[in-house]
Amino acid sequence: MYHHVKKLMYTVRVGTPDPRFGRMLLEQFGGANGELAAAMQYSIQGLNCDDPARKDLLMDIGTEELSHLEVIGTLARLHLKPTNVTRSAAEADPLIAICGGGGVNLFNSQGNPWTADYLKISGQIEVDLRNNIAAEARAKIVYERLIDFTDDAGSKDALQFLMTREITHMKAFMKALDSLGKGALEIGARPPTPGVVDQYFNDSTGEGDAGKDLRGPWNQGDGWEFVEAPAFKDLMDASGAR
Amino acid sequence: MYHHVKKLMYTVRVGTPDPRFGRMLLEQFGGANGELAAAMQYSIQGLNCDDPARKDLLMDIGTEELSHLEVIGTLARLHLKPTNVTRSAAEADPLIAICGGGGVNLFNSQGNPWTADYLKISGQIEVDLRNNIAAEARAKIVYERLIDFTDDAGSKDALQFLMTREITHMKAFMKALDSLGKGALEIGARPPTPGVVDQYFNDSTGEGDAGKDLRGPWNQGDGWEFVEAPAFKDLMDASGAR
Amino acid sequence: MYHHVKKLMYTVRVGTPDPRFGRMLLEQFGGANGELAAAMQYSIQGLNCDDPARKDLLMDIGTEELSHLEVIGTLARLHLKPTNVTRSAAEADPLIAICGGGGVNLFNSQGNPWTADYLKISGQIEVDLRNNIAAEARAKIVYERLIDFTDDAGSKDALQFLMTREITHMKAFMKALDSLGKGALEIGARPPTPGVVDQYFNDSTGEGDAGKDLRGPWNQGDGWEFVEAPAFKDLMDASGAR
Amino acid sequence: MYHHVKKLMYTVRVGTPDPRFGRMLLEQFGGANGELAAAMQYSIQGLNCDDPARKDLLMDIGTEELSHLEVIGTLARLHLKPTNVTRSAAEADPLIAICGGGGVNLFNSQGNPWTADYLKISGQIEVDLRNNIAAEARAKIVYERLIDFTDDAGSKDALQFLMTREITHMKAFMKALDSLGKGALEIGARPPTPGVVDQYFNDSTGEGDAGKDLRGPWNQGDGWEFVEAPAFKDLMDASGAR
Amino acid sequence: MYHHVKKLMYTVRVGTPDPRFGRMLLEQFGGANGELAAAMQYSIQGLNCDDPARKDLLMDIGTEELSHLEVIGTLARLHLKPTNVTRSAAEADPLIAICGGGGVNLFNSQGNPWTADYLKISGQIEVDLRNNIAAEARAKIVYERLIDFTDDAGSKDALQFLMTREITHMKAFMKALDSLGKGALEIGARPPTPGVVDQYFNDSTGEGDAGKDLRGPWNQGDGWEFVEAPAFKDLMDASGAR
Amino acid sequence: MYHHVKKLMYTVRVGTPDPRFGRMLLEQFGGANGELAAAMQYSIQGLNCDDPARKDLLMDIGTEELSHLEVIGTLARLHLKPTNVTRSAAEADPLIAICGGGGVNLFNSQGNPWTADYLKISGQIEVDLRNNIAAEARAKIVYERLIDFTDDAGSKDALQFLMTREITHMKAFMKALDSLGKGALEIGARPPTPGVVDQYFNDSTGEGDAGKDLRGPWNQGDGWEFVEAPAFKDLMDASGAR
Repeated sequence: MYHHVKKLMYTVRVGTPDPRFGRMLLEQFGGANGELAAAMQYSIQGLNCDDPARKDLLMDIGTEELSHLEVIGTLARLHLKPTNVTRSAAEADPLIAICGGGGVNLFNSQGNPWTADYLKISGQIEVDLRNNIAAEARAKIVYERLIDFTDDAGSKDALQFLMTREITHMKAFMKALDSLGKGALEIGARPPTPGVVDQYFNDSTGEGDAGKDLRGPWNQGDGWEFVEAPAFKDLMDASGAR
Repeated sequence: MYHHVKKLMYTVRVGTPDPRFGRMLLEQFGGANGELAAAMQYSIQGLNCDDPARKDLLMDIGTEELSHLEVIGTLARLHLKPTNVTRSAAEADPLIAICGGGGVNLFNSQGNPWTADYLKISGQIEVDLRNNIAAEARAKIVYERLIDFTDDAGSKDALQFLMTREITHMKAFMKALDSLGKGALEIGARPPTPGVVDQYFNDSTGEGDAGKDLRGPWNQGDGWEFVEAPAFKDLMDASGAR
Repeated sequence: MYHHVKKLMYTVRVGTPDPRFGRMLLEQFGGANGELAAAMQYSIQGLNCDDPARKDLLMDIGTEELSHLEVIGTLARLHLKPTNVTRSAAEADPLIAICGGGGVNLFNSQGNPWTADYLKISGQIEVDLRNNIAAEARAKIVYERLIDFTDDAGSKDALQFLMTREITHMKAFMKALDSLGKGALEIGARPPTPGVVDQYFNDSTGEGDAGKDLRGPWNQGDGWEFVEAPAFKDLMDASGAR
Repeated sequence: MYHHVKKLMYTVRVGTPDPRFGRMLLEQFGGANGELAAAMQYSIQGLNCDDPARKDLLMDIGTEELSHLEVIGTLARLHLKPTNVTRSAAEADPLIAICGGGGVNLFNSQGNPWTADYLKISGQIEVDLRNNIAAEARAKIVYERLIDFTDDAGSKDALQFLMTREITHMKAFMKALDSLGKGALEIGARPPTPGVVDQYFNDSTGEGDAGKDLRGPWNQGDGWEFVEAPAFKDLMDASGAR
Repeated sequence: MYHHVKKLMYTVRVGTPDPRFGRMLLEQFGGANGELAAAMQYSIQGLNCDDPARKDLLMDIGTEELSHLEVIGTLARLHLKPTNVTRSAAEADPLIAICGGGGVNLFNSQGNPWTADYLKISGQIEVDLRNNIAAEARAKIVYERLIDFTDDAGSKDALQFLMTREITHMKAFMKALDSLGKGALEIGARPPTPGVVDQYFNDSTGEGDAGKDLRGPWNQGDGWEFVEAPAFKDLMDASGAR
Repeated sequence: MYHHVKKLMYTVRVGTPDPRFGRMLLEQFGGANGELAAAMQYSIQGLNCDDPARKDLLMDIGTEELSHLEVIGTLARLHLKPTNVTRSAAEADPLIAICGGGGVNLFNSQGNPWTADYLKISGQIEVDLRNNIAAEARAKIVYERLIDFTDDAGSKDALQFLMTREITHMKAFMKALDSLGKGALEIGARPPTPGVVDQYFNDSTGEGDAGKDLRGPWNQGDGWEFVEAPAFKDLMDASGAR
């Protein structure tokens, strides 16, 4: 059961409204990495979760993200309000101006409607926690970029608060993952096929204007078997080159 | 530049075609966690990547996923072929039967068209690698579930191969992330606000048919400050209860 | 700011899980007329609203719908849980079974992802209240149909509660619209063109297997000017028939 | 059966083409509240309708909306034609310029493709008429905003005609609803639960930068039972505060 | 300007309603190759077209497709009506049953909403006519498959009529393309680069379970220069094999 | 099985990055007529194809399109890179700037995500080849328009190469269609109904600001039976005018 208190989680102040920045802010309201996506991803994972402790964690953070949705929505609303007034402001976001009368809606910075395709909900707790760590990392970098694109002090403050909370959540999800006690590569119940699991396929080779072939800990040492260009090898054999 | 060799990366054998299972297999052809999503996510991250070593990694695995797309597509095709022949088979997947004549297309198990909204591409390497670790974890659990839903030996074999490779890739992406040398909570350039970053908000409380309030390493110890129900506290204050 | 209490707004009991009914229930979780659509439509209208009294109304009901989302989600989850266990249950909803491991997600009964295109948010209070009256009417009829398709007593109870609340909200939105004091046909600020506004165009005529031409209070009396088939008239003139 | 006459329902004149305004006009061509949405919503409701008189009404107005689609499309086309000629005009709507060669398509002002998710078709006449009243209200306010964003006299004239017709339709749908003789809160066949239906849940409370708690005819008098913050009450009880 | 006559273009009779076949029929109502797609594609091309003769052709056929939409919709409606009555019929198409009360909507056989992404509108007449020839070919094969999946004589009759008309339209579009007098490979104004345009790249080579390498008039004779595996050649050179 | 070689199929050089042009280029990366659509359409048709020779053709060209995807993506990336740096560049494409950090993704020029709804895959070879001829014609005209909107020599060169290859492919698909030996109007197996197939319905008539009625080889001669306005005739009869 939910309750709403008529106070924002972080105070929102805006100097001069900047509709084109307001449009950018919509990324975190109705965009792929935004607050609704976070709120829904965690809350629904929580609803599905059979592990009571992590269910609680998912509901705590899922609920906090609803409060963030309200903060970013209020901030975007203040920047977009003039789109209903002048033609030049309307051009900043015609969809908000004409259909919304300057009010926000669950669109991203290019007017795409929010879709549940943004969500990663797997029904497997060690997978969902990884989904959430990645989601928080994305949200963090998006807030950082938004901060870089405005000079408005009040906007920067609110965005810094929201950005900070993503790191908080990332840490919490990492702790929850670690405390499961599963191996770093252990997902679900079926083991991978030994041998095959250690083969690194060098499927992109050569050197040129699209990169060069390099090595690193992701394909050498630590049990890796390096397999040189499986498809190419087959071609070479077929052509009798070797 | 790409080249195609007319040999599957893993041999595909099917006993009796099972159209309803074929429909399930489409999840990994045109679905949210499927092989096209993986191929595009990694290859486009690679195209954008300025770090030559990790660019190579992304292109290697992105290219391998194209070969996986071919394997899973061939497998699904074999199971779905009868949808063009009998009415009862057609009912298993009317879209494939009527629009595709029994041929596969980039739909998922419920006929939704593949969409780039499935992709997580951030333009920030430490974020993209986390996106990829999560993507591989999802693909692994999906393959595991598919294996559990068929008795066909050839199908199981091919799915086991594809499932195994997801763990291979997960390991490679983890190594690539670790070798960046950034802190576990360090994303982008802007630091979070000290203090605020350590506060855990207990935003879902009480006990009942929707769970109970619990503690764990994600909200106690290790520098956490536990903040009891911020919105509720505000309500309590407002009601004069405290 | 939001807070979550770990108790459902209405107790959910399910006898024997019925996955195919669970799939139908998803209409009210992630479907076009479902609880998320209601919660988002009203809450975002509230966020945009400059009329403090109706803003409060919108937030009250928007928040209640979040609690309904939790109730319907829990009910659907109970019916869909077996999709992860048996192949025949999985066939009831392959997307939930394979991608969700039997857990719910924001899909409708055919697996379409929830989209903000479902929302009707206009930034004009007399329009939004009409949007909401229509939305509640749709949700009411959908709940009625769901009740008709199950024999499970616990499911029927919960659905009856949710159905009842839609009528409550419909009444509240109607009162709020009436109390605005605007005329029944007064929308926004610009008046319609006199004369033209009273013309009823009889653009579908004749009688046959696609209906017949009839009259009613929507095209006769009360100031209506009945204009017979404007396009046809033009054709008749052109053909010299009159 | 349909017939097309090569004459617009309203003459369209444009002075200087204004591509950025043309893009705005696309809202009423291929947008959520536009003429195709209206034409399809009413015509398909009509196709499904078993009440011959209201079926006729739905077909009359559904057909008229097709003629409006042609008018607004012609108007948008005139404004967008230069996008194929100069780079600066192309920037006004790159999708129309590059993919359409300056020709219109069923996109909205931000290039989103028209989707049937815009439609509200319920198969229940008292619901569909409410859907239509709301749809006409939305279309009216959108036309009003478009008129406010242009100085072109010919464009204003055509938009005023189209805006006026929305009020005509709204009146017709209201008459058709009233003449059904059902109660204002009577939807479908199942009655709501007495008692529960009269409870107003005050789920958003307190006072602050997100609003304040207010009363009105939507939550007092006329049989309403005012229920103070159900979730909060539960929390208060749990905390022993009362 | 459009006018609707209350008579179907082809009489629709249905013996025993077959909801699962009704669902299949939706492909031609709200599906990718269906009648709305055809009606909109041709009518909007017509609206954009500056060539008066082909504009007339596009409007003639675009209007006929609206009449086809009505025929196929009526047929689907008859087959889907029982979905509102029994649970087993409802399972044939839960979206139609629960949201539509057994009435049709612009969905395909898997419940996907119609989208303007189905349309191919280019603003270039020699391209649009090719788009239309391909569209008619798709619609023809879809009708053929539908006929093969039913034994109902009335349904077969109506589908045969609709299928036949696709060939009529295909012929008309081919005549209109031929009469333009442009070369078979002449599109737009810019000529392709000589030499490069005649090179056939053999980018998929070898022989195995994914096919074999073959020749035909599409890569030999008639001016073709056959380029053997450009990427492979580069690899071979790099590996020093040649 | 696929292999990637780290060399572009055509060298990409960019003088001064032009983010607004970069956004236009995305049409051919993640847009409706772009290279991914081509690659997937042909490769999946190839995977489904039972005719070994045409399967080879489809795989050859499908693979080449993957190399084109890499070329156009690299070109777009160079133009869009500054969107991550300055606010004014970010405004050229806020989605790429904020979510992608200046990196490309599978969006079109208006930020719409790529969708498999763009694909035309029929499971019938004579239909698929027509789909492909039309697809190549669209891609050709799009490249031509892009060339017209830039002055950058390197961009023009690469686009000219890609444009040229579309004509190459168009020719190959035409040859493959011709060599099937089916009649120009022969699709699938069921013949159209004689007589009905030769009737041209003049469903759009009259003369005015929406065109005029004209004749051409698509409705006269060559066996055509010209049927004057079927719906109108019916109306005339009903009104007793004749």
